[in-house]
Amino acid sequence: MTYHAINFAHKLSLFREHWQPKVIAEMNDYQFKLVRIHGDFIWHDHKETDETFIVLEGVLRLDFCDGAVQLSPGEMFVVPRGVQHKPYAASALPRATSGCDCRKPIKSGVEANWLRRG
Amino acid sequence: MTYHAINFAHKLSLFREHWQPKVIAEMNDYQFKLVRIHGDFIWHDHKETDETFIVLEGVLRLDFCDGAVQLSPGEMFVVPRGVQHKPYAASALPRATSGCDCRKPIKSGVEANWLRRG
Repeated sequence: MTYHAINFAHKLSLFREHWQPKVIAEMNDYQFKLVRIHGDFIWHDHKETDETFIVLEGVLRLDFCDGAVQLSPGEMFVVPRGVQHKPYAASALPRATSGCDCRKPIKSGVEANWLRRG
Repeated sequence: MTYHAINFAHKLSLFREHWQPKVIAEMNDYQFKLVRIHGDFIWHDHKETDETFIVLEGVLRLDFCDGAVQLSPGEMFVVPRGVQHKPYAASALPRATSGCDCRKPIKSGVEANWLRRG
């Protein structure tokens, strides 16, 4: 039988739009998603599940009510269930957002986002 | 509050041994593990869970009873529950293993391995 690896770069080449996660694999009742991000997402939480972020390109900032964490390629973070957070990736121009004191230019991000399905 | 990203390179710098996965994060009832691999692991399956492999460095080959898949950095594969498989990463010298016709030299691998806890 022929088996094929899932290649992140290839999958990313298949779409350009931001904030529209694409499911690239499933494991039990979880989905692995790739998403391109740019600017702010909305504040939200997930009542029933933790959420994992891994950055492939660019820089992702996750804002929390009491701080923030910045992720570069090769870095991950798990947001616990019920914790309000707001993903953000800056464009080439600085952009100020609430709860953020990071104003240096950073690139748009490409993020692998893993979340329980449903 | 201060939040810190989990940096794969940093975590990998903390150990050198092969085939001894280190838990670097947890998400719900799952664990994220980093492992250095070299040579053959044993044939095995997981009756209760799928298993996800993502390669960070080197090349990982997963042998199955009826074939194999080779993963390079930036590639992933999900082994379904109950499927017999054998992870393998060659040294600098070619090494033949059962069920494998891939004999070109490939490096030792560094693998992010995600499996349900327990």
